[in-house]
Amino acid sequence: MKKTTEALIKALHIKIKNEKPLIHHITNYVTVNDCANSVLALGASPIMADDLREIEEISAISSALVLNIGTLNTRTIESMLQAGKTANQKNIPIILDPVGAGASTFRNDTTLRLIEELKISVIRGNMSEIGFIHSQNTHTKGVDVSEEDKNLGIDAGMALAQALAKKLDTIIGITGVTDIVSNGQDTLLIKNGHPMLSLVTGTGCMTSSLVGSFCSVTTDYFTATAAGILSMCLAGEKAYTLAGKKGTSSFRTALIDSISQLDEGAFSKMDILLNDFK
Amino acid sequence: MKKTTEALIKALHIKIKNEKPLIHHITNYVTVNDCANSVLALGASPIMADDLREIEEISAISSALVLNIGTLNTRTIESMLQAGKTANQKNIPIILDPVGAGASTFRNDTTLRLIEELKISVIRGNMSEIGFIHSQNTHTKGVDVSEEDKNLGIDAGMALAQALAKKLDTIIGITGVTDIVSNGQDTLLIKNGHPMLSLVTGTGCMTSSLVGSFCSVTTDYFTATAAGILSMCLAGEKAYTLAGKKGTSSFRTALIDSISQLDEGAFSKMDILLNDFK
Amino acid sequence: MKKTTEALIKALHIKIKNEKPLIHHITNYVTVNDCANSVLALGASPIMADDLREIEEISAISSALVLNIGTLNTRTIESMLQAGKTANQKNIPIILDPVGAGASTFRNDTTLRLIEELKISVIRGNMSEIGFIHSQNTHTKGVDVSEEDKNLGIDAGMALAQALAKKLDTIIGITGVTDIVSNGQDTLLIKNGHPMLSLVTGTGCMTSSLVGSFCSVTTDYFTATAAGILSMCLAGEKAYTLAGKKGTSSFRTALIDSISQLDEGAFSKMDILLNDFK
Repeated sequence: MKKTTEALIKALHIKIKNEKPLIHHITNYVTVNDCANSVLALGASPIMADDLREIEEISAISSALVLNIGTLNTRTIESMLQAGKTANQKNIPIILDPVGAGASTFRNDTTLRLIEELKISVIRGNMSEIGFIHSQNTHTKGVDVSEEDKNLGIDAGMALAQALAKKLDTIIGITGVTDIVSNGQDTLLIKNGHPMLSLVTGTGCMTSSLVGSFCSVTTDYFTATAAGILSMCLAGEKAYTLAGKKGTSSFRTALIDSISQLDEGAFSKMDILLNDFK
Repeated sequence: MKKTTEALIKALHIKIKNEKPLIHHITNYVTVNDCANSVLALGASPIMADDLREIEEISAISSALVLNIGTLNTRTIESMLQAGKTANQKNIPIILDPVGAGASTFRNDTTLRLIEELKISVIRGNMSEIGFIHSQNTHTKGVDVSEEDKNLGIDAGMALAQALAKKLDTIIGITGVTDIVSNGQDTLLIKNGHPMLSLVTGTGCMTSSLVGSFCSVTTDYFTATAAGILSMCLAGEKAYTLAGKKGTSSFRTALIDSISQLDEGAFSKMDILLNDFK
Repeated sequence: MKKTTEALIKALHIKIKNEKPLIHHITNYVTVNDCANSVLALGASPIMADDLREIEEISAISSALVLNIGTLNTRTIESMLQAGKTANQKNIPIILDPVGAGASTFRNDTTLRLIEELKISVIRGNMSEIGFIHSQNTHTKGVDVSEEDKNLGIDAGMALAQALAKKLDTIIGITGVTDIVSNGQDTLLIKNGHPMLSLVTGTGCMTSSLVGSFCSVTTDYFTATAAGILSMCLAGEKAYTLAGKKGTSSFRTALIDSISQLDEGAFSKMDILLNDFK
């Protein structure tokens, strides 16, 4: 099982390098540069465009759409909806990153509206954000996972991912100490990664951009979501060995370096479990 | 005197690491990523949110509010005022960074309006920006301190900081070759720092974000302002020894690295004078 | 011929360091931080301001205006036009970076409108962007040059640059494997550079900011455009030797480092051809 997933992921990675798919982002201004550079590092091509007057044309020439609500405003919500409608018409996958869902009514309402009005292919968030979408209750205190949600444990996380994936008929990716990907039927755990990833802003956003890049070259969004999250985890492990002791900013540089250096050997270090968690 | 300040600053730094306070920013899109990463490096948690529809809720769950006018626009001014009102009601400290005050009527009017309509806890700027607020005259030619103001000397700077602090009943922090902090009564000089800090964009903005982080865990905003500025100075010194010879971008990486590595030993290198400048 | 150009470029570089000209940018939020840091690294002083209410004052105190349409929106287009009018009245050079021209009607219309309503001193773009402006046809698929345009060859590029420079009475800079600068009469080729520059977002934007910095200290915009592009090329070569093997993010750090370390010796490595391409 692991061998199959490993082979699939490696094949998708090579496909990205060969096809250089265009990944359309409507995203926040905090981490946008790192998202662009991580997409380029993986081999895809980022484009950031958020004005209503060009959104349809840009979405139509892109291979995936990443919607990130990190610094939402009224103007960009309309653009997200319009871009999403175009993406849906053209069968282009949409990846939603509900940054800070649970932290304000505005983010909550927007997240739920995007999910209601669009067919989302993948939702990737932390335990607090995904938990909010499922229950519409939250313990979030900002854009990071709350201590309470962090301590819920892996079984609760898997149950949440499976239930929400089934309910919304989408792929759910929950990133944390152990990452969880579910399509409602199959569930996959990723044990790779490094705690230092939480000390750099935008590692969640970048992960969503990588997921978008993988989704752009396949219709197997389950494997693509695992591949995107895994890429960040493996790069995080490598970055820590390269620069973790120097501090958080050297770690961040080494992180994008490591994304740009991902190869067959790197992917062989994956530590994943699929539907068999003993 | 120095020993007391040193002990206070170290205690605040540990408190930030333990409490991970949420620092709400309405800031410019040029340096926002570095502000977020420097707050994380210090141990606090940044959130950037500027839409009027979520500003009250985000302010209410935050422990400090940083208002930075670097890339002002009409939309965000209203958000700053609303966030500030919420912060004032909840007794959350507000740190104002009047980037480029003096350079345009729009920045000038906005700076004065924020000061008039809100109770600001700390204003941190360069000599030109603080000088403008005091006299409403300026020699600024942009977002950097003017040559004229730079040459005014430390006595003029102290007099300015003291007078403005008294007039506005707030803490004034003027950063430059020697940094000055005053509450109108007490005045503190910081001799640490490195000239290379002026060759990287956003070191002023990051300093304000660090000041905000320290203010979030105490009501002693005078010491907190000194602590924030000092943290940047000490990190700048360390960064120069680590990477100064390589160039400005390696210096910037080493700067945030050094913020993330600040510890008891680092703070012991502080070179400050309090109310006794012989 | 080469010696003259070399001497001119070195003199302009020293002039920037001495005068620290203010470079006004209305630019995109993806690469804005790198633009600011590369301008600072070169020795000039960046200011980013895009609100209509301050645009005239900021333009009036600046020495060059860089208009970059990377993340256009309705609000900033009006600011670009207003800033451009002020710049034209004051004889301040305008550098246009038509990011993604050809990719959407909105970008196309805006590019053509800026060219029609303003006197632009320099247009710097890739082959697809410049090709669109000339023919209003395009094969662009995003913000990167299309494969089709990349394979057009150097003769086609020179013909394009010359024709468009003549038609618009402006300097045209086309960056790619070999860079081309033309004023319609004289044409210059730059053979320096490194392919890794295309793996980092914003190297084109930064190049335009460097061109703006050089244009701010001379009226010889032809040489200034060559100088700006050359600076990025030389920094790219150096950055590759310093950090290319580490990955794309270390390369980016080394790139801005290398801009900050440009000196007489570095400029002597220029490999340029002027009006004699045998």
